[in-house]
Amino acid sequence: MPTLRLALCQVNPSVGDISGNAEHVRAWTRRAADAGAQLVLFPEMMLTGYPVEDLVFRRSFVAASKAALDRLAADLAADGLGELPVVVGYLDADGPPQVSGDAEPGRGARNAAALLHRGEVVARYFKHHLPNYGVFDEDRYFVPGGMLTVVRLGGVDVALTICEDLWQAGGPFAAARQVGVGLVVNINGSPYELNKDDIRLPLVRRRAAEAGATIAYVNMIGGQDELVFEGDSMIVAADGTLLTRAPQFVEHLLVHDVALPEATERGAHPAAGETDGVELADGLRVVRRTVDSIPPAPTGPAAAGGVIEPVADEAEVWQALVLGLRDYVDKNRFPSVVLGLSGGIDSAVVAAIAVDALGADRVVGVSLPSQHSSEHSREDAADLAKRTGLDYRIEPIQPMVDTFLANMSLSGIAVENLQARVRGVILMALSNQEGHLVLTTGNKSELAVGYSTLYGDSVGGFNPIKDVWKTLVWRLAKWRNAEAARLGGTPPIPENSIGKPPSAELSPGQLDSDTLPDYDVLDPILIGYIDGDLGREGLVASGHTPAMVDKVLRMVDTAEYKRRQSAPGTKISMKAFGRDRRLPITNRWREHG
Amino acid sequence: MPTLRLALCQVNPSVGDISGNAEHVRAWTRRAADAGAQLVLFPEMMLTGYPVEDLVFRRSFVAASKAALDRLAADLAADGLGELPVVVGYLDADGPPQVSGDAEPGRGARNAAALLHRGEVVARYFKHHLPNYGVFDEDRYFVPGGMLTVVRLGGVDVALTICEDLWQAGGPFAAARQVGVGLVVNINGSPYELNKDDIRLPLVRRRAAEAGATIAYVNMIGGQDELVFEGDSMIVAADGTLLTRAPQFVEHLLVHDVALPEATERGAHPAAGETDGVELADGLRVVRRTVDSIPPAPTGPAAAGGVIEPVADEAEVWQALVLGLRDYVDKNRFPSVVLGLSGGIDSAVVAAIAVDALGADRVVGVSLPSQHSSEHSREDAADLAKRTGLDYRIEPIQPMVDTFLANMSLSGIAVENLQARVRGVILMALSNQEGHLVLTTGNKSELAVGYSTLYGDSVGGFNPIKDVWKTLVWRLAKWRNAEAARLGGTPPIPENSIGKPPSAELSPGQLDSDTLPDYDVLDPILIGYIDGDLGREGLVASGHTPAMVDKVLRMVDTAEYKRRQSAPGTKISMKAFGRDRRLPITNRWREHG
Repeated sequence: MPTLRLALCQVNPSVGDISGNAEHVRAWTRRAADAGAQLVLFPEMMLTGYPVEDLVFRRSFVAASKAALDRLAADLAADGLGELPVVVGYLDADGPPQVSGDAEPGRGARNAAALLHRGEVVARYFKHHLPNYGVFDEDRYFVPGGMLTVVRLGGVDVALTICEDLWQAGGPFAAARQVGVGLVVNINGSPYELNKDDIRLPLVRRRAAEAGATIAYVNMIGGQDELVFEGDSMIVAADGTLLTRAPQFVEHLLVHDVALPEATERGAHPAAGETDGVELADGLRVVRRTVDSIPPAPTGPAAAGGVIEPVADEAEVWQALVLGLRDYVDKNRFPSVVLGLSGGIDSAVVAAIAVDALGADRVVGVSLPSQHSSEHSREDAADLAKRTGLDYRIEPIQPMVDTFLANMSLSGIAVENLQARVRGVILMALSNQEGHLVLTTGNKSELAVGYSTLYGDSVGGFNPIKDVWKTLVWRLAKWRNAEAARLGGTPPIPENSIGKPPSAELSPGQLDSDTLPDYDVLDPILIGYIDGDLGREGLVASGHTPAMVDKVLRMVDTAEYKRRQSAPGTKISMKAFGRDRRLPITNRWREHG
Repeated sequence: MPTLRLALCQVNPSVGDISGNAEHVRAWTRRAADAGAQLVLFPEMMLTGYPVEDLVFRRSFVAASKAALDRLAADLAADGLGELPVVVGYLDADGPPQVSGDAEPGRGARNAAALLHRGEVVARYFKHHLPNYGVFDEDRYFVPGGMLTVVRLGGVDVALTICEDLWQAGGPFAAARQVGVGLVVNINGSPYELNKDDIRLPLVRRRAAEAGATIAYVNMIGGQDELVFEGDSMIVAADGTLLTRAPQFVEHLLVHDVALPEATERGAHPAAGETDGVELADGLRVVRRTVDSIPPAPTGPAAAGGVIEPVADEAEVWQALVLGLRDYVDKNRFPSVVLGLSGGIDSAVVAAIAVDALGADRVVGVSLPSQHSSEHSREDAADLAKRTGLDYRIEPIQPMVDTFLANMSLSGIAVENLQARVRGVILMALSNQEGHLVLTTGNKSELAVGYSTLYGDSVGGFNPIKDVWKTLVWRLAKWRNAEAARLGGTPPIPENSIGKPPSAELSPGQLDSDTLPDYDVLDPILIGYIDGDLGREGLVASGHTPAMVDKVLRMVDTAEYKRRQSAPGTKISMKAFGRDRRLPITNRWREHG
């Protein structure tokens, strides 16, 4: 049985930075070679980043991806790395992009993988199963591939697959069993969802059994707008044994020696030809390629990548939020961020995330007190600043609020919202003056019921916790403080911000509980309605009282949201780490009684 | 040859208002019956409205659509209309909605049509070709149908099809020829695009030839968020003759007598069975149903719907903008709108659209002068108010601007943007206080290059001209004034607003041309880049100078946009009446040199 040393490069590409991504491949291939690798794997759409959305329709972009692939093959050879086979994801096209319904059937843009060797593109594979649900729209962009690409290298037959190919039964994994391969490579741009790692491992095991082969699963990491990619790369043997598994949310070179069946042993391989001519699962045709030589088996001890232990949910979410924010700021080249500090839990958690992501010297926190701000709010904001070391400012809003009130006749909600909007204007002025990105701090629960001010506290270019329910915000705060204490550091979040009852402080003595149900009651209903697509009956059946269900659904659907904001024209994303809801704004469907 | 009196109901459904839409069907079926109709047709997804987006995934919503269809059939019979066959679009499902990749193949939610008769659902059809480009995401929502539904009524074989079935070759139209039908019904939710009517008629003619049958094409009208449906319903004979065509953008009952071949004359029909068992184009199976009797042929003169003449582009766009705004306001139940009036062309055009859509008594225009506002700006705003009769207010911003400046150290762009943001706060305060929806007035050219202030002039729930290039804004203004003069009314837009050089008036003597190329130069480049997906080379090849292309692309991609806004987190929709661009925010791809 041959042994291959595999190197899974769990790296962080940037969308659109084709030359930078290619440089990244060269640098990591060098590292893999230094570790004795005999086959190197990079994630899905490595050269372009993922997802590129409608850039697919720009011919210049597709051409740049294809040219970069050829240049990369040549550059690797020039680097002295030509003997080492490298699998890399890229954007290909064998026809014009499918921009309307009358495109040529079966031809168009492709989500592709290539195997590079000795300066050449030795093999190509086009993703067969295209995801078109949740955050994915790949039927919009790509034409599905119809071939199973099998490369013989180092005496082993290796099939190439991409991401969703793993998530659907049949297709390339079933076909791989039919032709009898030893290893299936699966390259990914698989976004993070809470607990997705818990379903990923069993899924890889199921496909390993289906293919009767070892699976090398490599995923990217990084933040891309509203998505976070988590890594969690792994190798699973044909019998389901987890051989090695990489940590989440960090770049990582996972090098591991894998014993694989010799191609001729399997008895299923005719002489390599262009295709076998046999129809496989899903109508796939096999395309065979051969790599004549690979680097010799390394001497010395076997390489073992180790198996990372799963972490607590709170740790996982925290790392996802930190990575998502860091990449949004850095990939868009913002020098720093600014946010309002109210003394409450939401802004405290966002500040702590920002400091973890960027360092305290790149975070500006502004206290924006009004006449309704309590003494403890100002103290808690100052305490947070001291604990985290961020750049702390105080900008009282009362003079501006008073001037508006002196020049207009406003009352009630209009006065409440005015205060939030003056804060927004101040933060945006600091952004314009000093270059910071403004961070928004509304949690998902209050966004869902409209308990926020449009163009007020909703001002900002990025909201790290917009997909985090309020009850999870509290859990995150407690976890982060405990983690600091465990490591002997300063807990960043004031205990008082965690313990006190939440308040918008826009009118005297105001509390969230004046308007909203307790978050312990509210959040499960919101989760069922928004994430679970449950209707009124389904929510009542899962144990909520009809009156409470009606109250919450009415808030979400119309009343509170409209009354407070007066302008529903901005779609609120209800995405929850990969669960994306797209709902009409103009919509008279009402679940509530 | 039998003659059938067809009634095409070009109506305006509301998304989510299932019971209201059903009532609309009953009322219009009554009107059709009164006109002697023998077959009545309503648009795609008539019962639910279109598009319903992720409401498809809510079981309660699907169940409500199916129940409403059965109830509608019974109600029509109870209304004494049971003899009259009615075709109506609705949402069906024959399996759980496809929310992830592992749904049951071939089963799921359906974009469906039903034929109702004598209180029963006599026939169903599931849309075969699903559009998944531009504004359409139907692969996300629906499973394609695999049958050709043919109903024999009044001696004629009638095939049912839905919208995209017409836009792609093959499928139900080709199958309809194979089984030899006399009439193909095509029900639509087809959104407006500039000049789409010019390609629609030739397309219907091509399909009539393909099917060898008359086509009855019925489309909805109305606004739904960012879409406008235009109507343009028509009947085209098998030989391509346009028999009748309805006006755009208004509800209309199009009644027309059509001579159709008798089913038995065609010689292609075996005895009606469940299916013929023959495989047709695209693998479709035929499903046959029979309606035993229909209302008798009316006596008296033949019904002729007439053929509407096409209108000028400006008239078409103006009507689309008016309808889109009216429905957004009314379907969301806003009492009125408010907008800032600068004296410039953009706000003047938006005000004129709003008055046409809602009436002057539902439009509030606010002049928000600063120290940089010229005398002519104030005069032009007042002149517009007088011409249109809208509710005119003046709210000077200088006291608030001065208070911010006294309390913060701001300069340059920060001071410019501050003025726009104070205006936004004032408009939102009026919205909260009085209940108006705030209208935004930025044109598509300035949005594309970032020549606007985030949370300043971008504040608002709806922007009627966000998909209108600046050069088209001017053309619209001139057309609307000429139209008023032609009809003997008052031209709504001051000539001075049309003729003067555009300026943001945020600093002394500022003009758009200080920063931007002339709009006659800018717009063609933007159209090529954004609507046409042309890259730098393609733009240069189409005649623009490389330097100008680089300047404009740099503005669009990064520089101006970021510098002025400091927060690119809000995706700008680049939709142009049905052309939708979805681009990553975090994106390092650069076309420009």
